[in-house]
Amino acid sequence: MKVEALTQEQLGEIHQATLDLLEKKGVAIHHTPSRRLFQQYGALVEGETVRIPETLVAEFLKKAPRSFSVAGRNPVRNIQIGEEYQPVLGPAAGAVFVSDLEKGRRPGGLKDLQNLLALSQLSDYIGVATAGILTPADLAPENQHLTQLWETVKMSDKPIIGLSLGAKISEDSIQMARIAAGDQGAHYVIGIVNSLSPLAWDERMLEAIWAYAGKGQPLVIACCSMAGFTSPTTLASTLVQNNAEVISGMLLAQLIHPGTPVVYGNTSTITDMLTMNLCIGAPEYALLSTACAQLARFYGVPYRSGGGLTDAKEVDAQAGIEATTNLLFTMANNVDFVLHALGIMESFLSISYEKWVMDEEIWGRMLHICRGIGALPGGAVDLLSTVGSTGHYLDQPDTLLNFRHVFSRPALSDRGNWDSWVKKKKTYPEAAHEIWQARVRNFTPPALPPQVESELKQYIKDVKR
Amino acid sequence: MKVEALTQEQLGEIHQATLDLLEKKGVAIHHTPSRRLFQQYGALVEGETVRIPETLVAEFLKKAPRSFSVAGRNPVRNIQIGEEYQPVLGPAAGAVFVSDLEKGRRPGGLKDLQNLLALSQLSDYIGVATAGILTPADLAPENQHLTQLWETVKMSDKPIIGLSLGAKISEDSIQMARIAAGDQGAHYVIGIVNSLSPLAWDERMLEAIWAYAGKGQPLVIACCSMAGFTSPTTLASTLVQNNAEVISGMLLAQLIHPGTPVVYGNTSTITDMLTMNLCIGAPEYALLSTACAQLARFYGVPYRSGGGLTDAKEVDAQAGIEATTNLLFTMANNVDFVLHALGIMESFLSISYEKWVMDEEIWGRMLHICRGIGALPGGAVDLLSTVGSTGHYLDQPDTLLNFRHVFSRPALSDRGNWDSWVKKKKTYPEAAHEIWQARVRNFTPPALPPQVESELKQYIKDVKR
Repeated sequence: MKVEALTQEQLGEIHQATLDLLEKKGVAIHHTPSRRLFQQYGALVEGETVRIPETLVAEFLKKAPRSFSVAGRNPVRNIQIGEEYQPVLGPAAGAVFVSDLEKGRRPGGLKDLQNLLALSQLSDYIGVATAGILTPADLAPENQHLTQLWETVKMSDKPIIGLSLGAKISEDSIQMARIAAGDQGAHYVIGIVNSLSPLAWDERMLEAIWAYAGKGQPLVIACCSMAGFTSPTTLASTLVQNNAEVISGMLLAQLIHPGTPVVYGNTSTITDMLTMNLCIGAPEYALLSTACAQLARFYGVPYRSGGGLTDAKEVDAQAGIEATTNLLFTMANNVDFVLHALGIMESFLSISYEKWVMDEEIWGRMLHICRGIGALPGGAVDLLSTVGSTGHYLDQPDTLLNFRHVFSRPALSDRGNWDSWVKKKKTYPEAAHEIWQARVRNFTPPALPPQVESELKQYIKDVKR
Repeated sequence: MKVEALTQEQLGEIHQATLDLLEKKGVAIHHTPSRRLFQQYGALVEGETVRIPETLVAEFLKKAPRSFSVAGRNPVRNIQIGEEYQPVLGPAAGAVFVSDLEKGRRPGGLKDLQNLLALSQLSDYIGVATAGILTPADLAPENQHLTQLWETVKMSDKPIIGLSLGAKISEDSIQMARIAAGDQGAHYVIGIVNSLSPLAWDERMLEAIWAYAGKGQPLVIACCSMAGFTSPTTLASTLVQNNAEVISGMLLAQLIHPGTPVVYGNTSTITDMLTMNLCIGAPEYALLSTACAQLARFYGVPYRSGGGLTDAKEVDAQAGIEATTNLLFTMANNVDFVLHALGIMESFLSISYEKWVMDEEIWGRMLHICRGIGALPGGAVDLLSTVGSTGHYLDQPDTLLNFRHVFSRPALSDRGNWDSWVKKKKTYPEAAHEIWQARVRNFTPPALPPQVESELKQYIKDVKR
């Protein structure tokens, strides 16, 4: 499966327009050390604006690797991110609300953070543990991030997505992930930063780039512009702006530490002009995501986008339509790193437990499609001739041997007949509710070696002082 | 967007295995005149089985055209079917039950037939009026088909999908469609026939092929095998069987009347081995459909498959997931003729009014994706430079001029915020319910010229005698 939203010519045009924009207009960089560094390498600084010459882009962007690995505290969980590898999935992140069938929608608390980390650890599809999966509303803001990081390391042995809001929080994320992973390899945490559309980078994000790139740790560098509001209505023009934002961020990481792994990220889409909401379930998301995948390949870096994105408020037909479209394009674009793969709802505002299980089902379907038709077996014509036009295949050894592992079997969707469905009396969200509840109930966190535990506790103690 | 399920090598292998199967084992043809005709052209007949030599396939399959047109009673509605044209969509067909939010699921009646024909006529996406959209359970079986055909011609001025169960019903379909379309062109009705898997053709279907092909009218020739039950578990082997069935049907049409337009059809999928249900929402459907699209192109004939297929029992997340997957592959495969595009549910057993509106929304999304990113406008960098990093795009002339016709706007999906959604108190199916009800309430059938009306009534009278 292969999708393209841009011809090679269009791709070249967008690249050239981006270079023009970076050189002529530039990007606002709200952070003095970052501006100084750009200036040192030949960029023109005027006030907060940095105008980046084409030569700088050409020289430094190519220093970013095409793929890289990240270690978790359990080496079996280590991941590889990049074009030659399978997509790595992360759960929904950064949501304010959580929802489930029983308790409805409410601000997420510590228990929810723990539950979602447990579901992340248990899901075969999820490759990372995300400290920022949600910010517990029932914790005091001071040192909240230390609790989030501690829970992440404790509940999961997968590689960690750190927090990246400013220097201190980033530094603590990096250190705690390093303690957890031990001396396994060069990369042990991933930072995620977003530009401030239009054409700007906020100080806290730039501090995060310095913190992660300063230690050579991978950074996912994304834009999330709202076409019609923080970027132009015309999608091709929005792409130029996005590209300028992402390139300036990737470039800064290379100037700080050449060779820092960077992932080209995109979550831009259109704005609902009635409510000013971000429409993450819109078909435009799939289009922009496809175009950005082409741009990331063009620059030779891994790509982040996609996931089970939807603007729906409950696990309904809209959620199914939008998450399926976006996960299908995630698969078709072979997105290297997928944030928000599971559970996200309501324009990034909330995480739904039932939606998580739904998205898992959808991704399972996508993987099944990826398996393809398969080869024609040797004796195919013989088998077909044996059964001919009068028999059936129910009692053929081929059927009995193969159907269980050849045929797809969705966890939630109903394939039975009407009467059995009526008798079951279970809606799709109800079936999903049972599944996640059973998982959370039976969860035991993976053992944390006592030495790692005491080192982490010591770190937290020192930092709090 | 381009999808492929088979490599060129696999395609060749399946073609060759099909020819072997047709020549060595053959197909059961339960109709004496058909067997005789095959024999006349060099096929070997043994009992009911016809073994078809490779040379016959090579010589006659190429007589089928790559594309063709069909006239409706309103020339504006005429359609073109084939690779160089846009997909032509037909509604769900052949269902036993209908369902809507108010009355639930029940056997469909005459009123439902009328409603569904009205919705077909009103939908911009639907290209045809399908007499077999449902068989009204409240009509006496005798001459039921005449009422179905009469309602179809009366309620819609689009080209007609006739009925094709046996010689008489086919003949009446052809005649009534001919009267409705007048002398506009060579083709004025489409017949749909299905093989009887495994490897057989039933008498009534063969009579329909004789009736339609006898008058040079287009035929959609499909298989609907159930892998694991009426075809092998291994998908590649199922493809060989399907291909043999469809090729034998297409070939018969060419022997009867060389040049008869035939559409290569496929609706095969896997069987739910617990309940023996056909899983039309399974990912295997998308895979088989993609592979058959490649086979149809290989043989140079238009292709029929796809649609909003689902095994769901209500308009829920499952319906959204499955219909979206199948409609996305319908788009990606550029399926020439799409039966069951709107409304089908429950493994082909029922048509849902609300699902119809949902499927329309999904297809609208697909068309939006097909529009692509679009060209980069001339002054893009200037516009981006003007707004720079401090402004926004809400008040830009580009935004005000373009957002309405550039941005997608789904009819049902909610893009607003939580509070407005709660206030609205309308689920996805409820919103769909309002839409179809308003359409049906306000529907006026397109005027039927008095002369056509009296000719049709005379035909019905004569036939009934």
